[in-house]
Amino acid sequence: MAVYTEVSFEELENFLKSYDVGTPRVFKGIAEGVSNSNYFLQTEKATFILTLYEKRIKTDELPFFLDLMEHLAALGIPCPTPVHAKNGSTTASLKDHSAAILTFLDGVSLCRPSTEHCLLAGSALANLHVKGKKISQHRENALGLSSWKAIAAEIMAEGNDVVDGVTKLVEAELDFLSMNWPSSLPSGIIHADFFPDNVLFVKNKISGIIDFYFACTDAFSYDLAVALNAWCFEADGSYNVTKGQALISGYDSVRVLEQSEREALPILCRGAALRFLLTRLYDWLNDSPDAFVKPKNPNEFVRRLRFHQSAAGPEAYGI
Amino acid sequence: MAVYTEVSFEELENFLKSYDVGTPRVFKGIAEGVSNSNYFLQTEKATFILTLYEKRIKTDELPFFLDLMEHLAALGIPCPTPVHAKNGSTTASLKDHSAAILTFLDGVSLCRPSTEHCLLAGSALANLHVKGKKISQHRENALGLSSWKAIAAEIMAEGNDVVDGVTKLVEAELDFLSMNWPSSLPSGIIHADFFPDNVLFVKNKISGIIDFYFACTDAFSYDLAVALNAWCFEADGSYNVTKGQALISGYDSVRVLEQSEREALPILCRGAALRFLLTRLYDWLNDSPDAFVKPKNPNEFVRRLRFHQSAAGPEAYGI
Repeated sequence: MAVYTEVSFEELENFLKSYDVGTPRVFKGIAEGVSNSNYFLQTEKATFILTLYEKRIKTDELPFFLDLMEHLAALGIPCPTPVHAKNGSTTASLKDHSAAILTFLDGVSLCRPSTEHCLLAGSALANLHVKGKKISQHRENALGLSSWKAIAAEIMAEGNDVVDGVTKLVEAELDFLSMNWPSSLPSGIIHADFFPDNVLFVKNKISGIIDFYFACTDAFSYDLAVALNAWCFEADGSYNVTKGQALISGYDSVRVLEQSEREALPILCRGAALRFLLTRLYDWLNDSPDAFVKPKNPNEFVRRLRFHQSAAGPEAYGI
Repeated sequence: MAVYTEVSFEELENFLKSYDVGTPRVFKGIAEGVSNSNYFLQTEKATFILTLYEKRIKTDELPFFLDLMEHLAALGIPCPTPVHAKNGSTTASLKDHSAAILTFLDGVSLCRPSTEHCLLAGSALANLHVKGKKISQHRENALGLSSWKAIAAEIMAEGNDVVDGVTKLVEAELDFLSMNWPSSLPSGIIHADFFPDNVLFVKNKISGIIDFYFACTDAFSYDLAVALNAWCFEADGSYNVTKGQALISGYDSVRVLEQSEREALPILCRGAALRFLLTRLYDWLNDSPDAFVKPKNPNEFVRRLRFHQSAAGPEAYGI
């Protein structure tokens, strides 16, 4: 959630001359998206999100993300799709930022998804993986295993001030994962940030999947591991095996997990927990006072990581 | 613009049980309102704003503001109107805050209103004053002359760190205004914060007047003086007499200014400039790191105050 760059109505009006989206009737900065400035835009024709990309998103990667959303939407995934300007482009410049207009999806994200929601989320994730196989674009996971060492190095000096003992935990985990990380699992387009914030519901049906700005090519089951971390832990830090079962069986109902993927789940969950622990620690230590959002507490991913470390096997997740 | 208090969808759902507004389809924190947390809420029935009142608004004053909006809306003023809960109340408690649901008005506020917009704003303000005469409620202006001394005392220690020489300017101006402030001007319900942010336009027509949380009983021409300060100065600090003429003649076309009001305009403009200079200085010095909004720069009201001090008479405003 953030508005870093303020856009006045007059600046918007000028920007919209390059588009054919109609006359704005509502234009409001919204508290959404960690790394971009987002505006809710309603015209007499439709509702949109105007996004100004801030530093975290590399301009040369934007076409990948926008093309991906356009392709996925065409394949029936309920995701935002970029609106083309009159000149055909899906990006334009606004206040020295790359900007895009995307279609708006109704729906609300849940803070405490139920077992039923987890089931729906699992099947939506599998559907994304299956449909995504038709997409030929490729993007390395910039936040995959090979990046974690570099982020770990950045948090070594002050990490223990935030979470007692975290640097030792991270170092040992990195060693373990480097030695044991699975390769040659079924791969393709993954969302890579499939948290409840990024899934919209209308009346207990999924109406939208948003925020594809971490999407990349990686193991499908790593995406499922991220989702298990994101959807199936309770506020007290405990793993809810009923929700885990629901998420996995929802996934399985659309795309059957291979044996290798099932077996790799505990280690993939460890990696996913470490990835979010590291980036949250980094954001915590590098908080911008201009942000509209407070950084998220890294602590909960310490607890999740410890759970995964103690998991005896895939059974611990409800498989 | 602010969201201080985060409300989850589940908390919203629970809160909405007391209302008959339909099922939420969109729920987003918006960067709007200086002292409240505001959420955009769309259901299958209609669009609303959910407001959580933060510390600046006294709970015992809420009924005045909400009743006022309800009355004004019934009198044809395009302003938000509170939605009654099933028990009839217009306020309820949400996350330890007083909260209200108000109807949402389409429209966008302008950063650089044109002369034409100033004309429309003037007539809308006069219309508010005329219609407001039918309302019997009364509220002292908590930010009127008698309050300025107390605020000035609060900024004396550090004010000069923000604006060089401001404490001397404020002291002298307070002395002058205390001696010369006009009394017995025509009075009634005024908006008291009639800035371009609080006036919404759709296709060059006024579609809404919002943010009545400074509304009170005071001189109508003081409200016009606030509007002259808010609408008729250019970014370079200069007064635009064409816009001033437009605002005043728009006002005059709906409610003819009395001679006493015309004559008082320069001193009322001085008072209005001082009021915003003082509160902006105060907010600047007491900025909350939790706010989504940066405080507004007090400096521009120093320049406006100096303009008003130099005004020879009402003619300086284009009368």
